[in-house]
Formats: sequence, structure tokens, C-alpha cells
Amino acid sequence: MNPILRILERTDGSVTSIIEALTGERAKIKTIEQKVIGASPEIAEKLNINEGDEVNFRVVDIFSAGIRFARAVSYTPLKRLDESFKRDLMSADIPVGKIIRKYKLEVRREINWSCIKENELGKCLVRNYSIIHRGEVLINITESFPFSAFDGLRWE
Amino acid sequence: MNPILRILERTDGSVTSIIEALTGERAKIKTIEQKVIGASPEIAEKLNINEGDEVNFRVVDIFSAGIRFARAVSYTPLKRLDESFKRDLMSADIPVGKIIRKYKLEVRREINWSCIKENELGKCLVRNYSIIHRGEVLINITESFPFSAFDGLRWE
Repeated sequence: MNPILRILERTDGSVTSIIEALTGERAKIKTIEQKVIGASPEIAEKLNINEGDEVNFRVVDIFSAGIRFARAVSYTPLKRLDESFKRDLMSADIPVGKIIRKYKLEVRREINWSCIKENELGKCLVRNYSIIHRGEVLINITESFPFSAFDGLRWE
Repeated sequence: MNPILRILERTDGSVTSIIEALTGERAKIKTIEQKVIGASPEIAEKLNINEGDEVNFRVVDIFSAGIRFARAVSYTPLKRLDESFKRDLMSADIPVGKIIRKYKLEVRREINWSCIKENELGKCLVRNYSIIHRGEVLINITESFPFSAFDGLRWE
């Protein structure tokens, strides 16, 4: 696996910052799907909320320099968001890491698992982590990084 | 500048995790210097404390796979540390990022500046950032990353 993917597998920092460092260009988000759902038992457990609680479900692709570097599928309990964060998350194409920096939230990222698998983007590094704020899961994210996007990169 | 250095310049995550991802081996810290000092006017301003307040000054080198990847010079106001964090910082060779994860601290990293310059390690990327916890500077760190350590890396 190339060293950038090894870094993305383990980092507890913003993935968007890493992608922007690679290309030298701003990352852009394309929202594929975004809706509010009631938490299933599985999601309720993952987020430590009650079944049926409102959750924002968001699927976005992260592009930079015209390359799709990642797809991120996230679940966010609405009751843990303040209004401005919620507005940015639900109606604007802003990466989560940037929203967190914008509002100067203090967080930690807890990586739950990672693996290599084929999905709709081809062969990918896939990892799941939670962003924790005030001791609670603010967001649970599953990111897929297609090998093809990173294999095209070369050292200068 | 090679892509790993570009990532290190911008990341708001743990530098140790990135170095460990590169080598596949645990990072080790070698403490070069560690002492408690009274804050000078400049340090007091940087940390938002009073002149003369006690500050831990620490210089460490970060090694992995036998390579020195970074030197980190840090200033930490002692009054903002709880006892266990203080003990790990002052008497154990543990990277700051690992101490933060160990105690599950929620933080944000605010990057203040970066530049390329020659210092005692040769030509380096140098950056300064603060780790913020509960709205206060917990640590201010200046990291030097010698180009020579990273230029030796190759894609697999």
C-alpha cells in the first residue's frame, strides 16, 4: 500500500488537509446523498443514542485537482449539534474537518477499524472512525480511499 | 518538497502517527533536554500566561526505524496540566500525541507558521503550532523535519 494510504489509515487529523497538501489545491465536496433518518438499532449503538433518534446521514465525495480521493459516509446525531454546525453539515458542501475547525471544536478521533476491499469505487482502503466531542460521538464516518487515485501520485 | 513533508506541514493530527505509518515501526522519543523554566515575556505571550509562570521546556527527537524524522521543541504551562499528564510529559519518553490519546483529551491544533530553513539538523521544514485544550494553549511546539530523512523514502 502506498505511503499516503498508510498515513490516511492511521491519521487522527483532518483527511481534507492531507488531500489538499498532496495536490496543493482546495478540496471540494460533492454531496451524493443527505437525509435525516431514524436510528436503527445498529446505528443507535454506534452513536450511543436511542433507537429512532434523528440522525443526519450524509454521503460525500472529496475531490481535489479533479481527482476523487475519497468517499465518506457519515452518521451524525442531530441532538448533539448546535444550529450553525447543523446548517453547515446539512446544507453546505463543506468537509467535516473544516466545519470542526470553523467552529474551533476540540475533538478527538477514535479509529475503529480499517481494511482493504472492493466497493463501488474499485479497490479501496476503507476505515471507520468516530469524532468525539464532550465525551460523546459527534460523527461516525466510514471513508473509502480508492487505490487508483493514490497510485497515480508520484514523488516530485 | 516531497509529499510527506507537505502533509506534515499542514496536518492537524498526530505527527507520530504519520511517522509510524511511513516506517511501519513504533516511533521512539529521545529526550535531548527537559527543564522547568520561568516564562519569559515572549513565552508568556505565546502561551497566554503570566511572566515567570512555570513552563516545562522539552526538546525531543523522534526516531522510527533508526531514522531521526523530527526534532520537537515544546513549551507547556505547568498549571494547565493534571498530575498524570505532567508525569508522562516530564519523566517519560512519550510523544505528546500519544499522551493526549492516552488520557483521551479533546483538543484542536492551531498551526501558527511554517517555513523552510537550515538549522542544526540541516535543511528542514519547520513549523510551529499550539495544541488547545479547554480554550487554552496546552502546549506550543516547534517541529523541525530534516529533508534528508524524508528524501530517503520511496514509494513501494
